[in-house]
Amino acid sequence: MPSAAKNAYDQLPYPTVIVVGGGFAGLEVVQGLAHTPYKVLLLDKQNHHCFQPLLYQVATASLGADSIAHPFRRTIGPMPNVAFRMAEVTSVDPARKVVCTNIGEFSYDILVLALGSTTNFFGNRSMEHQAMQLKSINQALDIRSDFLQEFEAAIALNDENDVRRCLNFVIVGAGPTGVELAGALAEIRRNVLRQEYREMDSDLMRIMLIDSNDRVLQNFSERSSANALKYLLELGVDVKLGARVMDGDANGIKLNDGSVVATNTVIWAAGVKGVSVQGLESDRHERANRYLVDRQNALKSHPDVFVIGDCALMEGDGAWERGHPQVATVAIQQGRHLVANLKRRAKGEAVLPFSYHHKGSMAVIGRRRAVVDLGTRSFGGTFAWLLWMFVHVIQLVSFRNRIMVLVNWAWKYLSWKNTIRLIIRPYVRKTSLAPAEVA
Amino acid sequence: MPSAAKNAYDQLPYPTVIVVGGGFAGLEVVQGLAHTPYKVLLLDKQNHHCFQPLLYQVATASLGADSIAHPFRRTIGPMPNVAFRMAEVTSVDPARKVVCTNIGEFSYDILVLALGSTTNFFGNRSMEHQAMQLKSINQALDIRSDFLQEFEAAIALNDENDVRRCLNFVIVGAGPTGVELAGALAEIRRNVLRQEYREMDSDLMRIMLIDSNDRVLQNFSERSSANALKYLLELGVDVKLGARVMDGDANGIKLNDGSVVATNTVIWAAGVKGVSVQGLESDRHERANRYLVDRQNALKSHPDVFVIGDCALMEGDGAWERGHPQVATVAIQQGRHLVANLKRRAKGEAVLPFSYHHKGSMAVIGRRRAVVDLGTRSFGGTFAWLLWMFVHVIQLVSFRNRIMVLVNWAWKYLSWKNTIRLIIRPYVRKTSLAPAEVA
Repeated sequence: MPSAAKNAYDQLPYPTVIVVGGGFAGLEVVQGLAHTPYKVLLLDKQNHHCFQPLLYQVATASLGADSIAHPFRRTIGPMPNVAFRMAEVTSVDPARKVVCTNIGEFSYDILVLALGSTTNFFGNRSMEHQAMQLKSINQALDIRSDFLQEFEAAIALNDENDVRRCLNFVIVGAGPTGVELAGALAEIRRNVLRQEYREMDSDLMRIMLIDSNDRVLQNFSERSSANALKYLLELGVDVKLGARVMDGDANGIKLNDGSVVATNTVIWAAGVKGVSVQGLESDRHERANRYLVDRQNALKSHPDVFVIGDCALMEGDGAWERGHPQVATVAIQQGRHLVANLKRRAKGEAVLPFSYHHKGSMAVIGRRRAVVDLGTRSFGGTFAWLLWMFVHVIQLVSFRNRIMVLVNWAWKYLSWKNTIRLIIRPYVRKTSLAPAEVA
Repeated sequence: MPSAAKNAYDQLPYPTVIVVGGGFAGLEVVQGLAHTPYKVLLLDKQNHHCFQPLLYQVATASLGADSIAHPFRRTIGPMPNVAFRMAEVTSVDPARKVVCTNIGEFSYDILVLALGSTTNFFGNRSMEHQAMQLKSINQALDIRSDFLQEFEAAIALNDENDVRRCLNFVIVGAGPTGVELAGALAEIRRNVLRQEYREMDSDLMRIMLIDSNDRVLQNFSERSSANALKYLLELGVDVKLGARVMDGDANGIKLNDGSVVATNTVIWAAGVKGVSVQGLESDRHERANRYLVDRQNALKSHPDVFVIGDCALMEGDGAWERGHPQVATVAIQQGRHLVANLKRRAKGEAVLPFSYHHKGSMAVIGRRRAVVDLGTRSFGGTFAWLLWMFVHVIQLVSFRNRIMVLVNWAWKYLSWKNTIRLIIRPYVRKTSLAPAEVA
């Protein structure tokens, strides 16, 4: 007994565009194609969009998950030509023009893959087993519950080495995620641990930021890297450059200089790789596991399959010869460009090649400590921090989320405390991993 | 290397009060004993206080978990004579005056047990295995993720019976929790399902509220019961009175009239029983598993062990001969009274007997639909709804949480939508339970 509404969507006489993945790239396409002569189906394994740039604030108890996530159905609710299914895509069959998922097959006329990226462990299998990641809401809540449980475990221990192991937080990768996490944890030591764990020596907490490069934020200007390093050191972060994690087990991790760091918590933020699906192997490039696309974001072998965002590798766009950076602005611009091209196509006009317009980079290390690269200018400090907040708030998907984030930030600014310190996830004792499993 | 602060707390020359459980009763004691000549240690298996009366709003996607939870350390931060340990109490040894936990033993001079209550399945083992509960944040998030996943599963199905099973929500117990849950789900059908699941027939969703009594809210006035029933029927809730769930398995549940209801989701809100610890068996009463206490809330056999709140059974308090209701107001009043008595004791004054002052009862069914019993007066409608909101907001533990709840409620009032519809918990397919396990 299908309802009238069901028929209304099904009977739209338009070509079907299936968008796989509702991250920045995919959501841009879905929103852009609302009220156009296309029938759009969004597929995602989550039921909500996640604003990834603020995930680290969920992980460090500054924001609730609901402040940075937004249900897809809330976004597409008013769009008569858009539908959503929560589904895990298992493969694509471009010959039959079909997407296969855990809830069945869906036929497309045009396929848009916006699969995003996942953590890249670069073959370090012990880290793949042992380290935490920060690519989803669930992982952010895991990190939050975990570091809070380490605090609670530490305060109940007497042996100083045991306490140190609980309070030793190792972050691998000094890109924006790693730097922001390290700064936030350092502020928690300063503003939360000293005051609310008084019976414990907060100086025993150590935040170690490890990177194999010779500077933090290596994709930023040298000036911003220097500023960020200065801020990290001011906050007491132990920055180890030119260092690599070679191995890890229940006792801690081993670095390339042979030193061993006793820790229960390693967070891996050292890189990402594209997510892929079965069925399009010939188009995949080994460089970061991304799909090779032309300047229209189309696969060379299948012009009706478009790949956008982190999982796309486009060559030939001027300075970005080796592919665009895997960041939100590229994803949004490619999504927007694809929408424009699809609209042109519907009108029988010629499509245009994509060019990335690099607006800049920014990262926040702590209260009034941020770095911004804008064109050829680089600056840090309070103004950079305010700009960072402004840019992130306006990019949030819903007005409600903007309010929630602003209220939470105002509260944190006034109280100096990360308030959302709720342990609501089962404890993942990574060190219970037997060494045999690691190898 | 204990820090100076650690010594400062440890060396307080006061008798030690251990408070087990940071619910309404326990937190009242902890806050009341701040800055008094007692050394207070709060033990709880969670790291946060949870405002249980609004749990159903977390479960039905109106509020985030962080709006109704507050970290204990945030509350006790400014109290020099109070400490907290996250610990699971396994037993009490009143002869040695020791509390045994998963992180070691703690000695007390005075013990306050505020253990709260847990779901009472009244021996229905199939329900104990199959039904969801609503007594903690985790359970609320489970219910939220679960009903949203049923929606997503339903929209992907074609067979009408399969769809009905996904969309059939059975709530057992028409006390405040059951009534509030049923009303909230009915509003979701009306305001969310119809608009954001357009390709599905929202009339296939059914909310069934089952109670063995002959009226809903049986502890309320007859007028409020009648009003609540009217509101539930207006919202399209299927209220089944005088009915009992006899059994349940993968196919659904069986009622005492022999009828079978096909459903994936049963939420059990039919009653609570006291939580108990090992070591005090002789003081436990079989009536709802509560500890028998005198009018000072002390165990008769151990005058230095006080039991307050849901897990205490006090006889002889006027109209409450069979024990006080297991609600927040009793817990708060008993906590406050115990603090006053402990302060009197510290000054060498005589202690006073507890008397419960019943302020009233209230429950909300939906937008502008609530019922209030206040003294001998009973009323419903918009004013009752506003009063309900006011009373709940001012009772929240922190100012931040009050703001968060108000912002969320204002948002919901204006948008008519439950926005926090995030599936962030692993899917618990209750029906995957093999019948053998149920029996």
